[in-house]
Amino acid sequence: MIKINEDQIEGRNPVWEALRANRPINKIYIKKGEHRGKITAIIDRAKKTGIPMLEIDEDTFLSMAQTPGHQGVLAKAASKNYSSVEDILKRARELNEDPFIIILNELTDPQNFGSILRTADGLGAHGVIIPKHRACGITPAVAKVSSGAVEYVKVARVTNIARTMDELKKEGLWIIGADIDGKNYLEVDLTGPVALVIGGEDKGLGRLVKQKCDFLVRIPLRGRITSLNAAVAASILGYDILRQRLTNHGETI
Amino acid sequence: MIKINEDQIEGRNPVWEALRANRPINKIYIKKGEHRGKITAIIDRAKKTGIPMLEIDEDTFLSMAQTPGHQGVLAKAASKNYSSVEDILKRARELNEDPFIIILNELTDPQNFGSILRTADGLGAHGVIIPKHRACGITPAVAKVSSGAVEYVKVARVTNIARTMDELKKEGLWIIGADIDGKNYLEVDLTGPVALVIGGEDKGLGRLVKQKCDFLVRIPLRGRITSLNAAVAASILGYDILRQRLTNHGETI
Repeated sequence: MIKINEDQIEGRNPVWEALRANRPINKIYIKKGEHRGKITAIIDRAKKTGIPMLEIDEDTFLSMAQTPGHQGVLAKAASKNYSSVEDILKRARELNEDPFIIILNELTDPQNFGSILRTADGLGAHGVIIPKHRACGITPAVAKVSSGAVEYVKVARVTNIARTMDELKKEGLWIIGADIDGKNYLEVDLTGPVALVIGGEDKGLGRLVKQKCDFLVRIPLRGRITSLNAAVAASILGYDILRQRLTNHGETI
Repeated sequence: MIKINEDQIEGRNPVWEALRANRPINKIYIKKGEHRGKITAIIDRAKKTGIPMLEIDEDTFLSMAQTPGHQGVLAKAASKNYSSVEDILKRARELNEDPFIIILNELTDPQNFGSILRTADGLGAHGVIIPKHRACGITPAVAKVSSGAVEYVKVARVTNIARTMDELKKEGLWIIGADIDGKNYLEVDLTGPVALVIGGEDKGLGRLVKQKCDFLVRIPLRGRITSLNAAVAASILGYDILRQRLTNHGETI
């Protein structure tokens, strides 16, 4: 038997975004009786583009769903391909923009990964780099939390994050690590071609990756807690990178 | 790990009332063989709301019970008390700072609420205001995600968010709503006494609350996705409020 790689996309927004992105979808499954809200739009669009749909009873549907956030609809799609680091850099060149990359080192929580993909899309970042091992990859839960951003943001998986950081430095990028030992990010120039490195939920950046960073920044904490959630930290720093770029170039968005 | 102070609640009615009041309960202990009357109802409700239960033998149970009125059941609950809006304003006065409050209107996801409490602590915000109804309260899950911040950040629950906004305006606060129809936050002066209002995950601010805001701000989105995660949005805006305050006052942190 030939095994076909398929991704399962669950939930109304994720399925809708996959359709909008013209992602090759093999089949859409709808829980019997679900015809409200965005599902109507999904059905219309699937009909127009000739994607097979199947209405199935609740028990069968629930046995297929892999997350609680299915909202009565799921789609089987051709496996989303990971991009390469070169694809990400090429994207920046095509847009004639300084590269803006987010590196996630051993992030393990799908909530955080999905949320960061959503923010990366919002930021207009050119891509996200994750390690092949000891890290959360793209799963249905990640796709759902990303609110569909997984369809648009390039994600590259690499064997060795430290080596990739060296390659990015050769391409002229500044590598900025988020770390409690760093300088207050509000006092640091974050403009230019950059890769922002976010560490794992418990372990932080890790010794080697931390050493490889060009500089470290911290988010000032004025209370009692000693760190922020990883997705929150990535978003605060990411949006300040964007703010500094825009201020520097006098652009508005 | 941060130790959370626990209250022990003993007896069928007290435990039942604590459940009914949605008080955050960490664990329920039942004396072996007690399955009659109201204990059945307690077990049912605890199962539905996902509160862990443990049946223990009589000797262990009696060594834990602190009163003779235990009736075979006791619960360990987080001892966190809600604050009042006045407590929050008082805290700002004590610190001689412009009030900085986060209002969450009908946020329902414990992940988001917990994460925002963690960020609120990091920001040094004076408190968080939530509605009594149709919103996530402080549960053990929220306490866990908050990484202990729940113990330090003042949380006030109010019956009517719109009325509370009017009261805060009388106290001189500017009410800033996060909304897609707003002005780019990077172009708005966010200094002075402020309350930042974040809407529910699906519904946004809601019509009345939106009308009551002094102004609306949006986070620019450069990709295809039309919104960010609620905790992420609160954190980006919260940290820009802090940045603007510090820039304005020439402070550093």
